[in-house]
Amino acid sequence: MSELFTIDCHTHILPKSWPDLQKKYGYPGFISLKHTSPCCAEMMLDNKPFRTIQANCWDLEARIADNSEHGVDLQVLSTVPVMFNYWAKSEHTHDLAKFLNDHIAESVTKYPKNFIGLGTLPMQDTHLAIEELTRCKAINLHGIQIGSHVNNLNLDAEELFPIFQAAEELEMAVFVHPWDMLGKERMGKYWLPWLVGMPTETTLAICSLIFGGVLEKLPKLKIAFAHAGGSFLGTLGRIRHGFHSRPDLCAIDCQIDPNKFLEQIYFDSLTHDREQLEYMVKILPINKIILGSDYPFPLGEQIPGKLIKESEFSEKTKQALLSHNAAKWLGLDLKKYL
Amino acid sequence: MSELFTIDCHTHILPKSWPDLQKKYGYPGFISLKHTSPCCAEMMLDNKPFRTIQANCWDLEARIADNSEHGVDLQVLSTVPVMFNYWAKSEHTHDLAKFLNDHIAESVTKYPKNFIGLGTLPMQDTHLAIEELTRCKAINLHGIQIGSHVNNLNLDAEELFPIFQAAEELEMAVFVHPWDMLGKERMGKYWLPWLVGMPTETTLAICSLIFGGVLEKLPKLKIAFAHAGGSFLGTLGRIRHGFHSRPDLCAIDCQIDPNKFLEQIYFDSLTHDREQLEYMVKILPINKIILGSDYPFPLGEQIPGKLIKESEFSEKTKQALLSHNAAKWLGLDLKKYL
Repeated sequence: MSELFTIDCHTHILPKSWPDLQKKYGYPGFISLKHTSPCCAEMMLDNKPFRTIQANCWDLEARIADNSEHGVDLQVLSTVPVMFNYWAKSEHTHDLAKFLNDHIAESVTKYPKNFIGLGTLPMQDTHLAIEELTRCKAINLHGIQIGSHVNNLNLDAEELFPIFQAAEELEMAVFVHPWDMLGKERMGKYWLPWLVGMPTETTLAICSLIFGGVLEKLPKLKIAFAHAGGSFLGTLGRIRHGFHSRPDLCAIDCQIDPNKFLEQIYFDSLTHDREQLEYMVKILPINKIILGSDYPFPLGEQIPGKLIKESEFSEKTKQALLSHNAAKWLGLDLKKYL
Repeated sequence: MSELFTIDCHTHILPKSWPDLQKKYGYPGFISLKHTSPCCAEMMLDNKPFRTIQANCWDLEARIADNSEHGVDLQVLSTVPVMFNYWAKSEHTHDLAKFLNDHIAESVTKYPKNFIGLGTLPMQDTHLAIEELTRCKAINLHGIQIGSHVNNLNLDAEELFPIFQAAEELEMAVFVHPWDMLGKERMGKYWLPWLVGMPTETTLAICSLIFGGVLEKLPKLKIAFAHAGGSFLGTLGRIRHGFHSRPDLCAIDCQIDPNKFLEQIYFDSLTHDREQLEYMVKILPINKIILGSDYPFPLGEQIPGKLIKESEFSEKTKQALLSHNAAKWLGLDLKKYL
């Protein structure tokens, strides 16, 4: 394994506990945490088990120990997408976002050499979202994590544009994570919402931001997509061919070839596959791929950065993927961390 | 351009006219054809324009002229997926399938050196589907084209298994084409059902057949997928990682690594992208890629086989992709066509 400075841009964290949200807000649909042993807890959705998690999901020292073992120097913290709660009343989502963001900011303050933070926003309310985005900046978070859609809105919805605009102005990084997968009624078995639904969500998010003209209008927006961009890069030929063969349908709000936006978008490296990562390195500008592992979840890269570090890429390429590109995306001065 | 023998496995055809199906069956929802000039017609869905088509969609001589210009020797004919009509009463879908299949069989009989035919089946009725599959064999079709799902059933549904079993026994090729795309409510603009929905449909179909154990149980089934397998190959790392990390969710009906089935599945070559085609050639057994163009539609490869013929693949690889693999899939003796 290489000793190159390593930033894991895609990790999830939860507080060890939080108030009973159903009680606090007055209606069900929120996640609660039931600690079952010192090492384990059950995320519960309306009293039904949603996901079992380990201490490294909330315990900062456990995360630092894992990082040390894995060769990760700096971890970018963001909440678990099921905590987005865009469906709830916006004042409640806002209240919860503040709680989660304060927790992440405190984690960064406690271990500033180990963690960087991304906030969550009440995206269903443009005004509150921008208010909280501004506050995220003030409490030293480096960006935000948002879902691949907001209720029935794709990311090109005009209600969302001012939030992206504010993120560009504030130089806050944006990390788009799939959630609330479309087509669930067709994906009842085999973990298909995670294996097929999530990559589709991400692709739909990227296409919406490109075809909707959002990326064209905000060329300095620092935006990254989880899971290597889902199925976007593997179907880019079809997407581009559609754009060129039916501009009457595709090029109505943005006339620029989708390929051009590969110079603007960041993708995390989570392919789980050597050939697919090599394909990314082949077709993308080398400064656009950032290490992301989905730590600490089972669909993640178990040793974050292993695929990159064991690749045959040049040292320069490895360093770009492991931290230099992330520093650019997040606006970090790496010297402060060395 | 190379002079290698070329079979285009993915083309669509319609009869020049057919009975008024709403009148014949007694309810709406069927496609009709309105000829607007000698060269053009409008496919109408309940009196609303669905798609404009050209004469090469129905005129055999126009197709042969195109093939001659494009360097295609043999074209595999199949209906347009909107004609599947799995939603209709099964006796009506059966009746229409017989009409469409007879038309394709007649086209092949008229020009046996130019065309090969795939039938369509009333997949929503296991018994009628097998009856028509058997008849397709008898009228000299080489296989069938089916949709990526059948109403609310994915392709691993037990109702569909006997049809696949019969296809294996009869040595009929199966071509899976995306249709009736999931998540349409999230894809209102930018042709997204075609650009994002279709690749997802195909991926869901492949995953269903793998995880559901259908391919394991039918190792001799000769099955091919349109559009280079949709987003399957570009997200295979994630799919495999899911299989290995959560066997409790993924490996419940089939315990074999999804990768193993790459030796069984055929993929058409429709990537619209040189690097993606090279990626396919890199990761797939070389005998599993078949030329498919989606002729005569705009999302197709405008000169079928151009990407392969202009590639830097060896002559042997080109010949495999352009016809040898197709001959194996369809059970053709190429000597008869040379």
